[in-house]
Amino acid sequence: MGVKLGILGLGTVGTGTVQLLQDHAFRHPLLQEIEIYRVGVRSLDKPRTVTLPESVLTTDLEAIVTDPKIDIVVEVMGGLEPARSLILKAIQNGKHVVTANKAAISRFGHEIFTAANQAGVYVMLEAAVGGGIPVIQPLKQALSVNRIQSVTGIVNGTTNYILTRMQTEGSNFSDVLADAQRLGYAEADPTADVDGLDAADKIAILASLAFDGRIKLEDVYCEGIRQVSKTDIAYAEKLGFVIKLLAIAKRTTLSSPSLPPISVRVHPTLVPKAHPLASIHGVNNAIFIEGEPIGQVMLYGPGAGAGATASAVSSDILNLVAALKTSTTAPNPLLTCRHQDYCQIVPMAELVTRFYARFLTKDQPGVIGKLGTCFGSHGVSLESIVQTGFQGELAEIVVVTHDVQEGDFRQALTEIHTLTAVDSIPSLLRVL
Amino acid sequence: MGVKLGILGLGTVGTGTVQLLQDHAFRHPLLQEIEIYRVGVRSLDKPRTVTLPESVLTTDLEAIVTDPKIDIVVEVMGGLEPARSLILKAIQNGKHVVTANKAAISRFGHEIFTAANQAGVYVMLEAAVGGGIPVIQPLKQALSVNRIQSVTGIVNGTTNYILTRMQTEGSNFSDVLADAQRLGYAEADPTADVDGLDAADKIAILASLAFDGRIKLEDVYCEGIRQVSKTDIAYAEKLGFVIKLLAIAKRTTLSSPSLPPISVRVHPTLVPKAHPLASIHGVNNAIFIEGEPIGQVMLYGPGAGAGATASAVSSDILNLVAALKTSTTAPNPLLTCRHQDYCQIVPMAELVTRFYARFLTKDQPGVIGKLGTCFGSHGVSLESIVQTGFQGELAEIVVVTHDVQEGDFRQALTEIHTLTAVDSIPSLLRVL
Repeated sequence: MGVKLGILGLGTVGTGTVQLLQDHAFRHPLLQEIEIYRVGVRSLDKPRTVTLPESVLTTDLEAIVTDPKIDIVVEVMGGLEPARSLILKAIQNGKHVVTANKAAISRFGHEIFTAANQAGVYVMLEAAVGGGIPVIQPLKQALSVNRIQSVTGIVNGTTNYILTRMQTEGSNFSDVLADAQRLGYAEADPTADVDGLDAADKIAILASLAFDGRIKLEDVYCEGIRQVSKTDIAYAEKLGFVIKLLAIAKRTTLSSPSLPPISVRVHPTLVPKAHPLASIHGVNNAIFIEGEPIGQVMLYGPGAGAGATASAVSSDILNLVAALKTSTTAPNPLLTCRHQDYCQIVPMAELVTRFYARFLTKDQPGVIGKLGTCFGSHGVSLESIVQTGFQGELAEIVVVTHDVQEGDFRQALTEIHTLTAVDSIPSLLRVL
Repeated sequence: MGVKLGILGLGTVGTGTVQLLQDHAFRHPLLQEIEIYRVGVRSLDKPRTVTLPESVLTTDLEAIVTDPKIDIVVEVMGGLEPARSLILKAIQNGKHVVTANKAAISRFGHEIFTAANQAGVYVMLEAAVGGGIPVIQPLKQALSVNRIQSVTGIVNGTTNYILTRMQTEGSNFSDVLADAQRLGYAEADPTADVDGLDAADKIAILASLAFDGRIKLEDVYCEGIRQVSKTDIAYAEKLGFVIKLLAIAKRTTLSSPSLPPISVRVHPTLVPKAHPLASIHGVNNAIFIEGEPIGQVMLYGPGAGAGATASAVSSDILNLVAALKTSTTAPNPLLTCRHQDYCQIVPMAELVTRFYARFLTKDQPGVIGKLGTCFGSHGVSLESIVQTGFQGELAEIVVVTHDVQEGDFRQALTEIHTLTAVDSIPSLLRVL
């Protein structure tokens, strides 16, 4: 009668999901048809905040993914292995899968979705990106009637928290990071967050859905926030920007008859204050989507946390329960993975974007002219070039460009580095 | 083979939808299976911006909704009649329906969904609220695993445009309205927008989905923006607020074992500047949803326009095409209307909210004390009471309360009206 779940993992997300599913009042009535049949854990003796019958808990995860009674496997253990192997085995055993595992999907998505399409089962991943924010399902369904032009996200709460505090307090990256670690907003090893790796996993997934092709994670350009200084945040502020770690996937052109290449990248970015993404503060996430003919939409909410993630996991379970009730014959084309080919990715040198750069130069007349000439000879058009002040005996000059090809801009910088008047280029950031 | 559409109406939204459906590249591949089979128009001779075979256009709308070949009827003609009758007849003839008609759904939803459930067909209405923003589908699916506590929307672009301009320019309502009419942002008869009636239609629909019960439109409290003055906008600004026309549906308590009553209302509201809804400017719409355990999410985008609305209409068509491909037996419980009962609505006098009020008083010592005493004796707790300046010989006093029962507050005001020191109460607004 009921739909039987096998849940792999009872950490924060698993516990949140069990709590939600055990407490039906004022939720979608279909949730009442769900039975938590098995929950796989590492240790049976660990104290839990949820109560489950003893017969439900097991340390034999393999037995869950092969149990013929189980309809849906919910993978909320995280990590690459054994998560990947268990997901694949569940698929081979004809089970639908719900996963919150962005790392596994962004790396092994090709293998996992190919297996799922062959087995005729669904792999659902709403919780993998943006915590509770409904973004995977809108991209697969409601927004998919549009030609998506770009997906731009603040998809990592830790870095957004750090940048928000750096901005409001005028503090240094390292000080805020240390405090964030103390408060539990950043991990002891913050690499995955502050170096942009987590955001890269997520934009690979979003790009794949938005542009209907698979993405190789190594094609995602990735730059973290360690080099963002309070000085740059202050200058950005004066120029009308805030600095955000953005994950961006963008179609380069729609004129090509074949699948046009896309750029997929994570980097700190100056965002105009009037842009909706500029007002996303703290640990919140937001995904800004541009499409034709819809225009611009933004989906905003908590990017992490037990409750938000449990909401996303449960919404996937709900979708599967509805699908199981409707039919067991033809797969629902809105729930299956509909592409098998890889997207064509633009090399960063061919990216067209605006830049912000800060220069320290000798205090000589004519330096601004030399910089301007050098940019001009490489086809780099400038929006503004301003001497903002002094650092000791060196003059500080801030440049904002119009849209330029990144390769041209880099060549100009290489030449500028050779100018005797130029001491150093402490900052280089892209502008939305 | 293909799924056959009968489209009722070829105005702005109908034309946008036809354009989207005729141009498949880089959209969801399922759209290629759709055939625009009939389009009902008022006049065959009118010049059109879309090209359709002559045999597709017809002035016989009745023949469309009864044509046995047609699978889906798309009602984008607007208005109450004949839209209602045609929708009902389409349902009786076993057709799924997509409609953008918030006025018809908010008034005749009970009749329409009862008929649809009986006939075993779906009535889809993504375009009825929030233009292109995916909000109906997330409320029916992804967010429905949560206990929704509140839905708070800026759902009328015209009034948000007017309030945004009043705020940025310091202008009067009537001046901005006249200019908005000249620019095409407001209708010649602006009643439905500026008096909040359009927003009331929309919040009735959202409340119904969020709280799983039907809503009688006459139960929706409705107050427009005509009385919002530039003076209040300026004071609100000083106090840290912006004034927005909000459409609010809120569950009063979750402690009740039966369906708890909800409040459903439209009124100008002071929104704290840090609230995500405060930064929704111009004609944009946003819907802010609070639920357990998800927390707060906001869906933002263009609230109107041919492209945005066509996106929403087409996403509903896409969902139906997917459903038709999957199964024709059991209805998908995520697409059907799942409630038949009416929600219990809280009388406004029992609403608990914060208030902003502006008083003009004689310039006498002790007036603030008298106001404070009067509020206190009615159980109205104040957050601030400030003499902000003078209007001629009268002193101007602005009061912001904590959460109070509206009935208590009104009684205090009635008593304050009788104080000889009080000249008038020019403004009274609720605070989010």
